[in-house]
Amino acid sequence: MSAVPVPNADAMLLRHDDGGVTTLTLNRPHQFNTLSYEMLETLIAAVDAIAADDSVRVVVLAGEGKAFCAGHDLKEMRGNHELEFQQRLFRLCSKFMMKLTELPQPVIARVHGIATAAGCQLVSMCDLAVASDHARFAVSGINVGLFCATPGVGLSRNMGRKQAFEMLVTGDFIDAHEAQRRGLVNRVVALDELDAEVARLAASIVAKSPVAIRMGKQMFYKQLEMGLDGAYQTAGETMACNAMCEDAAEGMDAFVAKRKPQWKGR
Amino acid sequence: MSAVPVPNADAMLLRHDDGGVTTLTLNRPHQFNTLSYEMLETLIAAVDAIAADDSVRVVVLAGEGKAFCAGHDLKEMRGNHELEFQQRLFRLCSKFMMKLTELPQPVIARVHGIATAAGCQLVSMCDLAVASDHARFAVSGINVGLFCATPGVGLSRNMGRKQAFEMLVTGDFIDAHEAQRRGLVNRVVALDELDAEVARLAASIVAKSPVAIRMGKQMFYKQLEMGLDGAYQTAGETMACNAMCEDAAEGMDAFVAKRKPQWKGR
Amino acid sequence: MSAVPVPNADAMLLRHDDGGVTTLTLNRPHQFNTLSYEMLETLIAAVDAIAADDSVRVVVLAGEGKAFCAGHDLKEMRGNHELEFQQRLFRLCSKFMMKLTELPQPVIARVHGIATAAGCQLVSMCDLAVASDHARFAVSGINVGLFCATPGVGLSRNMGRKQAFEMLVTGDFIDAHEAQRRGLVNRVVALDELDAEVARLAASIVAKSPVAIRMGKQMFYKQLEMGLDGAYQTAGETMACNAMCEDAAEGMDAFVAKRKPQWKGR
Repeated sequence: MSAVPVPNADAMLLRHDDGGVTTLTLNRPHQFNTLSYEMLETLIAAVDAIAADDSVRVVVLAGEGKAFCAGHDLKEMRGNHELEFQQRLFRLCSKFMMKLTELPQPVIARVHGIATAAGCQLVSMCDLAVASDHARFAVSGINVGLFCATPGVGLSRNMGRKQAFEMLVTGDFIDAHEAQRRGLVNRVVALDELDAEVARLAASIVAKSPVAIRMGKQMFYKQLEMGLDGAYQTAGETMACNAMCEDAAEGMDAFVAKRKPQWKGR
Repeated sequence: MSAVPVPNADAMLLRHDDGGVTTLTLNRPHQFNTLSYEMLETLIAAVDAIAADDSVRVVVLAGEGKAFCAGHDLKEMRGNHELEFQQRLFRLCSKFMMKLTELPQPVIARVHGIATAAGCQLVSMCDLAVASDHARFAVSGINVGLFCATPGVGLSRNMGRKQAFEMLVTGDFIDAHEAQRRGLVNRVVALDELDAEVARLAASIVAKSPVAIRMGKQMFYKQLEMGLDGAYQTAGETMACNAMCEDAAEGMDAFVAKRKPQWKGR
Repeated sequence: MSAVPVPNADAMLLRHDDGGVTTLTLNRPHQFNTLSYEMLETLIAAVDAIAADDSVRVVVLAGEGKAFCAGHDLKEMRGNHELEFQQRLFRLCSKFMMKLTELPQPVIARVHGIATAAGCQLVSMCDLAVASDHARFAVSGINVGLFCATPGVGLSRNMGRKQAFEMLVTGDFIDAHEAQRRGLVNRVVALDELDAEVARLAASIVAKSPVAIRMGKQMFYKQLEMGLDGAYQTAGETMACNAMCEDAAEGMDAFVAKRKPQWKGR
């Protein structure tokens, strides 16, 4: 993905920081970046570090090689064929997926190739997704006798239930444009435009007040699970607090004075 | 919007009644119809009066001037920079938004121009929306350091979560056709067709039994927040009661006799 | 629909079994296949029998004659104009609709013609739907003074709330392509391609592991009504159990060995 030499270029997960944008790249191209137990642990550690790092404003999740992510490591699953291992594996995977939503910073999936099973789930659980027109999406576990129940959680919160159900029971692929129509990805561009488009979206977020983005993302997922009345109560309280932040005062003053705001991040 | 002279033409909010259709027009064109504290109080009073007025069958919400509604009044928010005022303001705004849903009569947003921040929320919280192809939509608070948390409540109940989140963190506009594809508006027409299209939609509702519309709208929002089993229990009870109304008896008799029904409104 | 002579060709509901695919055909063409009390009882009995029949892998719901299903039988409703009958009727109808979701096997609606009121609800409550481009959809009860409250439950879980609300208060039809864009149907084909397309979709499901499909469908609807955290907990547990099934072991082994899996159904 990048020609810049990175330390630990053979690490399972690469981290690259540039102007507030942290790119995490799944780096097991020959295994199609499967979410092995170790990969999930590595991802969780990386996300935990980012959560505590105020210099990171946006996270980009990418994959090295031909695939974005092909889901779980079936060989590992077969090699540890005990219920206890499977339970630990899926708990770990769900924990990681939830962390994407809990992370203060917005997460953009950069989907250049196929995203299948838990790889498709990964796209669904990122806050935003930009895909190349080469990307394809499937929840294909059903082809190996394994209904993608956990990927279905994310998928059915991104698109209509009939459309999600069809993908889950057929295992069929949809292309990037169909994924966009259904709500699974935000933008689709040519492969050679992908990095520029991701950078544009990331830059738009980096230009905003960090405190507002942080309060907003947290509230967004909280209110989604509430009734209308409860959602308005909690979101209204958040807006009132946000309005008292220095950044909001600066933003409103700048707007009235028709000048660019200078964020202080608080 | 109208060439007919109205009493109190300089009032903040204009009310025009015509054949069961009540149009409320935000009338602060030079302030882009911002939802100031006073405007929200005025809107609540108007909606409360309509709720008790059986002669009103449909409400149309419109805006005078270039904009439909540009959200909150930032000058007022900066001029009252205390947490207590912000809390009162957002509680009042949420109260008004909830009242649109609670109102017995359906509410149609007539969106001729831009609808931003709480103005976009207003569109999202109306039962129906008809837009001109000049209309544009954004939840742009983030540009002034203020994440549109409360607009996000309505927005994320009109369109997919990734699409709503992108609008909330970028502040970017979408045009009317995109708003329609996403579910934020029902119909898009040329600006000079807007009043005719709104009138057509309103007339279609006015032609229906008022008691059925009232029972139906109330049930619609109630069941949306329930699980499938609970939703069917409560909706089934509503249908059984509705079926016992004089209007339903008349409607079914008219259908069988292939004649036009005469509603009595009970 | 079929040229093959069937036993009880004058029965209210026809059942045809072929290679794991069971087609239930509403057979009151002259009454537009209305969901009379007796039809609902017959459908419930048929669905209960299928639930206990492991030889059935997919259910197709079809209608004989011009219409797919025109909803409730208005003459019957008028002929039994007591609250108690209406309550029993809607409880029975909701019970049937819920059973489609509870059924272990996926259900495909084969919609060749109009689907109105509870007929439109029927489409919305099937797991999947394939429509001909002659099909049209409406929740038209409002035209006879009867707001389609229960059809609204299914409809508003298939498409956006503004789009569902518009259909409910206007009673207007949408065509098959619009129904697909909104999420009410999965696929639209020419009328003379309908049976082939339904067969293709059914065959794709029949080719999968029955135990995985059964566990998956049950989990899909359960997690839809939960928050993200609860959904992942329960779906993760399901996946771990699924992974311990013989079919999943076979499926993963076959995948690694690049051969076709042989399902045992457990």
